[in-house]
Amino acid sequence: MTNRQIVVAELPQGTLMPEHFRLEDTTTPDPAEGEVLLRTILMSIDAANRGWLNGPTYRAAVEAGDVMPTYAICEVMESRSPRLTPGDIVAAETVWADYVALPARVVQKLPPVRPLTHLHSVYGIAGKTAFHGLLSVGKPLAGETIVVSAAAGSVGGYVGQIGKALGCRVVGIAGGPEKCSFVTDALGFDACVDYRAGGVFKALRAACPDGIDVYFDNVGGEILETTLMLMNERGRIVCCGAISQYENTTPVGPRNLPGMLVVKRLRMEGFIVMDFAKDDAKAIRALQTWVAKGQIKVIEDVVEGLENAPQALIGLLNGDNRGKRMVRVGPDPEGSQ
Amino acid sequence: MTNRQIVVAELPQGTLMPEHFRLEDTTTPDPAEGEVLLRTILMSIDAANRGWLNGPTYRAAVEAGDVMPTYAICEVMESRSPRLTPGDIVAAETVWADYVALPARVVQKLPPVRPLTHLHSVYGIAGKTAFHGLLSVGKPLAGETIVVSAAAGSVGGYVGQIGKALGCRVVGIAGGPEKCSFVTDALGFDACVDYRAGGVFKALRAACPDGIDVYFDNVGGEILETTLMLMNERGRIVCCGAISQYENTTPVGPRNLPGMLVVKRLRMEGFIVMDFAKDDAKAIRALQTWVAKGQIKVIEDVVEGLENAPQALIGLLNGDNRGKRMVRVGPDPEGSQ
Repeated sequence: MTNRQIVVAELPQGTLMPEHFRLEDTTTPDPAEGEVLLRTILMSIDAANRGWLNGPTYRAAVEAGDVMPTYAICEVMESRSPRLTPGDIVAAETVWADYVALPARVVQKLPPVRPLTHLHSVYGIAGKTAFHGLLSVGKPLAGETIVVSAAAGSVGGYVGQIGKALGCRVVGIAGGPEKCSFVTDALGFDACVDYRAGGVFKALRAACPDGIDVYFDNVGGEILETTLMLMNERGRIVCCGAISQYENTTPVGPRNLPGMLVVKRLRMEGFIVMDFAKDDAKAIRALQTWVAKGQIKVIEDVVEGLENAPQALIGLLNGDNRGKRMVRVGPDPEGSQ
Repeated sequence: MTNRQIVVAELPQGTLMPEHFRLEDTTTPDPAEGEVLLRTILMSIDAANRGWLNGPTYRAAVEAGDVMPTYAICEVMESRSPRLTPGDIVAAETVWADYVALPARVVQKLPPVRPLTHLHSVYGIAGKTAFHGLLSVGKPLAGETIVVSAAAGSVGGYVGQIGKALGCRVVGIAGGPEKCSFVTDALGFDACVDYRAGGVFKALRAACPDGIDVYFDNVGGEILETTLMLMNERGRIVCCGAISQYENTTPVGPRNLPGMLVVKRLRMEGFIVMDFAKDDAKAIRALQTWVAKGQIKVIEDVVEGLENAPQALIGLLNGDNRGKRMVRVGPDPEGSQ
């Protein structure tokens, strides 16, 4: 049985390009004792994937010749473990491939949620990252002002919608007028600043008349530097990602760090969604409540076909996506979209 | 009665020089109703004073023509307030001058501690800054590794000694072999890295075989960038100051921020000693206990004469001091040193 897989042909220096990947045909693996054979249904495409190609992060570095790693929703096809049964829908750290064999103990059985795409978006990495980062690190209170960058992206859109549900003023930062309209009109943010239009400091100051209490940072770099200038005393900066730096071969640090932290007594803190796994059930219940009340809209951006995964990631790094991007490799066995 | 005062003649751009100050003779002020006339005894000289000359911080910017602000220990000479009596020893935000009149409500009566210098050093700004920053922001546990920069300075020396008293491994960073010997031999740090000798990353890595759990940052800039690379997961960076940047007209931010915070889930937090005033009594009791047990040595660096205040500050910014620097303007009425 043929198994397609996408290998990292060469590690990128700077901008990620299609030639950094190679599609290969290989054979479908046989699960060993204790393992399961998984069929990939939906692969999550995240900015962090680009970071993995730069060196070790919270996971080992990806090397040239490796099959590209990913986080995916899969169907169990064969099981040599009592923990799982064929037909189970699971999530796991897998690779860009049609099939993969993994030890059953590293595979997580998923709840019976449909459509499956929601397990990557609002009830998956995107929604949980927004929830845990905002509530556990940012700790906003009603009436405070939250700013979030990459506001039209997967995490940013949920951060803003959760912030609104909590009674905060929410201001997004996004690239281009079309995205900014999406952020205010479709997602309901109070305002959105177009960083490509220039004059970000003035525009952000105008959009935040009471200053900024929580900045949820997905981008780092100059936007972080600008936002720091507008933070209120004892503000919190939630460090979720630094998409502006992943492809930057000459990174620049915010020049007002650490000075601004001292002067304004700011707290700046990084986190990874997995750190809060013990609170995932609470997060899901809250997110379900807001979805049911219509306070959170679920925006998904599904790219069809394993072979399109490289372009899906390249496009995401260029800001092409609206909402949570994922690649559909195969069908949901229950036939949902 | 003549009153000498030192005025900021011109705001510095870059390196602070004697010509940025001017000594003037003026008259001793008459206290108004509700005010006290204070005679300056000891003025605290701090790196933060240089920051005040760059623009607004946690206090208003100093302007050219202003008498240079300071924090000083004074004797009450005349009182037009029921709150204070002539002969009282007090602390206040004053200026570089022999005499100053201030509202009694902004003046803090000091406990009967001798020598008075200890009210600037171990029981004053230096000791309290080290205590509150390390315990309330850094939160080290016995067995963890603490790194502190400007380790031979006033705050750094107490941070390290408190860290040792708490059972931590303590590594200093200081400039030059003589200072590094002082830090290890006189202050009892486990190791000290000479940042002027180059190879700071390798030297620091060798001195911290278990990585860094708490970095108490007094300097910012490149040393912060280097230290971030060696932080353990969930480490804490206590942002106390950024002495490397105060005279830098082209500041450079740590290029690995915010990336390192995300990858390692670090918390980086600024503070000002006044934020923790409600815990000052606890701090003083703990510091007195450690001093009594011989676990904290009190190192003081007293410069004699108001007229030498500019050079005392310039020298501090060059790293000339060992321990807490202050300027003695007049005698303790009880005659202590």
